[in-house]
Amino acid sequence: MNAVELIQRKRDRGSLKPEEIAWLISSYTDGTMTDYQMAAMAMAVFLNGLDQNELAAWTGAMLRSGEVLDFSDIDRPKVDKHSTGGVGDKVSIPLAPMVGACGVAIPMMSGRGLGHTGGTLDKLESIPGFTTSLDPARFREVLTECGIVLAGQSETLVPADRKLYALRDATGTVESIPLISSSIMSKKLAEDLDGLVLDVKIGSGAFMKDLERARELARTMVGIGQSYNVKTVALLTRMDTPLGNEVGNANEIAESIAVLRGEGPADLVEVTNALGEEMLTVAGINPESLIETIDDGTALELFGKVVAVQGGDRRVIDDPEMILPKAPHHRELAADTSGYLSRLDAYKVGVAAMRLGAGRERKEDTIDPAVGITLAAKPGYKVAEGQPLLTLHYRHPARLDEALRVLDGAIEISEYEPEIPPLLIERID
Amino acid sequence: MNAVELIQRKRDRGSLKPEEIAWLISSYTDGTMTDYQMAAMAMAVFLNGLDQNELAAWTGAMLRSGEVLDFSDIDRPKVDKHSTGGVGDKVSIPLAPMVGACGVAIPMMSGRGLGHTGGTLDKLESIPGFTTSLDPARFREVLTECGIVLAGQSETLVPADRKLYALRDATGTVESIPLISSSIMSKKLAEDLDGLVLDVKIGSGAFMKDLERARELARTMVGIGQSYNVKTVALLTRMDTPLGNEVGNANEIAESIAVLRGEGPADLVEVTNALGEEMLTVAGINPESLIETIDDGTALELFGKVVAVQGGDRRVIDDPEMILPKAPHHRELAADTSGYLSRLDAYKVGVAAMRLGAGRERKEDTIDPAVGITLAAKPGYKVAEGQPLLTLHYRHPARLDEALRVLDGAIEISEYEPEIPPLLIERID
Repeated sequence: MNAVELIQRKRDRGSLKPEEIAWLISSYTDGTMTDYQMAAMAMAVFLNGLDQNELAAWTGAMLRSGEVLDFSDIDRPKVDKHSTGGVGDKVSIPLAPMVGACGVAIPMMSGRGLGHTGGTLDKLESIPGFTTSLDPARFREVLTECGIVLAGQSETLVPADRKLYALRDATGTVESIPLISSSIMSKKLAEDLDGLVLDVKIGSGAFMKDLERARELARTMVGIGQSYNVKTVALLTRMDTPLGNEVGNANEIAESIAVLRGEGPADLVEVTNALGEEMLTVAGINPESLIETIDDGTALELFGKVVAVQGGDRRVIDDPEMILPKAPHHRELAADTSGYLSRLDAYKVGVAAMRLGAGRERKEDTIDPAVGITLAAKPGYKVAEGQPLLTLHYRHPARLDEALRVLDGAIEISEYEPEIPPLLIERID
Repeated sequence: MNAVELIQRKRDRGSLKPEEIAWLISSYTDGTMTDYQMAAMAMAVFLNGLDQNELAAWTGAMLRSGEVLDFSDIDRPKVDKHSTGGVGDKVSIPLAPMVGACGVAIPMMSGRGLGHTGGTLDKLESIPGFTTSLDPARFREVLTECGIVLAGQSETLVPADRKLYALRDATGTVESIPLISSSIMSKKLAEDLDGLVLDVKIGSGAFMKDLERARELARTMVGIGQSYNVKTVALLTRMDTPLGNEVGNANEIAESIAVLRGEGPADLVEVTNALGEEMLTVAGINPESLIETIDDGTALELFGKVVAVQGGDRRVIDDPEMILPKAPHHRELAADTSGYLSRLDAYKVGVAAMRLGAGRERKEDTIDPAVGITLAAKPGYKVAEGQPLLTLHYRHPARLDEALRVLDGAIEISEYEPEIPPLLIERID
């Protein structure tokens, strides 16, 4: 086969055959096809799309570029959740032990933060001793022992995706629905799942700003999942303001533990429960079991267990204040007028937290787990002039200044009570 | 500036500013912008196009990537001709001395053959001793001494084009009207011309198969020329069958000399004269002078002069048979039925000549100047069964076999006299 011919075909809106796509992805992975040829192909796919058959073949070829896990010896239903990412989105952390405590096996592989969004791995690593870097044997051991595992993507899984993602990042071909879908789904299908629940976020703090595109992404991913016989459901959820009250790393762990104690903020609890109920339904378990895991403490207990098994300090579940790192300095931001908080922009809060050191501007940046932002008010709250709206936890004054600059215009207070749209927008299956 | 941002803008059908395009081309030329980023940009340009301002800026940026010639000390009008390439297209070789003999300076830089089309440089180099590789100082000397010069592209001119063309070739982004136009026009504008005549060929042996696309290419190039104050005219000419009767290298030189002696085949003479008259008109010289240069022998004389000055054997103009290399073997192909020759496919004849060794399959292949094909009949001729239609001049029997295989289906003989469409299709200025 010939790379130029395949590029020309996609350029001219033709279809690629499954064996051609398989050749393309394997040639790119082993270096026979060059970066510049794949860059031209990625742009052609970006602009001309992939049809359903091409998409299934592309995802499958990515999947087969590396190891595929086999959990057929685990007799529980295996279900995972994926979020397209948002600000303050720590849902995976309380969700995994809640659903796990109901008898679902969760071989969860998460990612790191980049730009305005944080990453589950970075948050978990703010627990002293906790490691997310597990080799495949250890990953399986933790999953067998705890029923859940909270780890990073193994280097041996879907190497094509790592290579292609880095290329897309450098060539303006990230925001393509077929390329995003096949990237996400190939990694999830490599986990040998029975079911998958997707949280597709929409709004200023999300990757997708627009309902129509988010819906298309969700439908595309659900379609790929179904073509591989994985029960796949997507929820479209709103991400105009941070989820929960904490944005950062250590503070998001503390908030996750609060959810497991039944003390989480309403919006975070609502999204966590909605996703958890979908995971249980997909697994064939009564969704009402979910809330019991909070009431009877089994979810918190399971979280403590997995933290300990993955090397972390188990005491975090009883005394997060003592165990988690804390920033040395704090600065409150107060309301400059009285009224209703009508906007608290997720994107700006996310970027401000990144500037404080809670996120990465570039891949090679390091995270400061102690810094972050705590919200004292959320859109819809009545606020009085001078009342604190949020607190910045910081280490370096220069970074505080940068964060404050970013927050300029992030907050709006209006005279009239704003209408707050529902968090859960739509369900796609 | 940021390469990814500019790629994204073009991807999303936005416009690039002149300074952004200048940065893009210079960054790519100096290696700051990677091949894979330019590949993604080239595909975005292929699919989304460039508007008139972007195209002028892109061409200008390419032009300024290297040396720009300055012939302001030469007081003759400076005009060149460019052909998009065809089979048997040796027009430049008789044309330059004809127009030069009328008092036009022609700083002609030509290319080499690739695929089914030959190159003017390869043909000229079949004259023993003739060199087309001239440094800028020598190029100027020949131009000053002879009024014309027949050379290869200098390495110092438009380096961005060499780099970008190689990348386009490997990424399926060759057949883009803005990229083709800016490539051709940047090289021609670097010659410091007052006027330019373009021969845009259409048909099986041409790059453009389709009238509408050829017209768009011609209009685009004429537009770029005008935006740089170079009087530019394009002729659309037909390329369904080879131009003239000779396809190869040495045999095309012999046929070019026949044109200069007034003994050229009608179709070749028609195209040469049409382009020559346009060049003279653009230069402000009476186009009727052209034919006089044949009648009074000044064109042939000038060709002999430039051959000698460029190191070639001047005797070629008097006795091409003796001076030019000859192939050791010949094979005739005869008509298998009586009737009218209705098709003699330019593309297949071009590929057959390449297989004999007259052209290059890959850039690194070497040319055998002696081999080629001579046509004894052209479409419209009445032929009798067993009458020779063409002769293959070959060196290696294996290559003859390959060429004969390619010619299968190249020739059609019909019962009724076919209608032969005119060679000159349209004039665009």
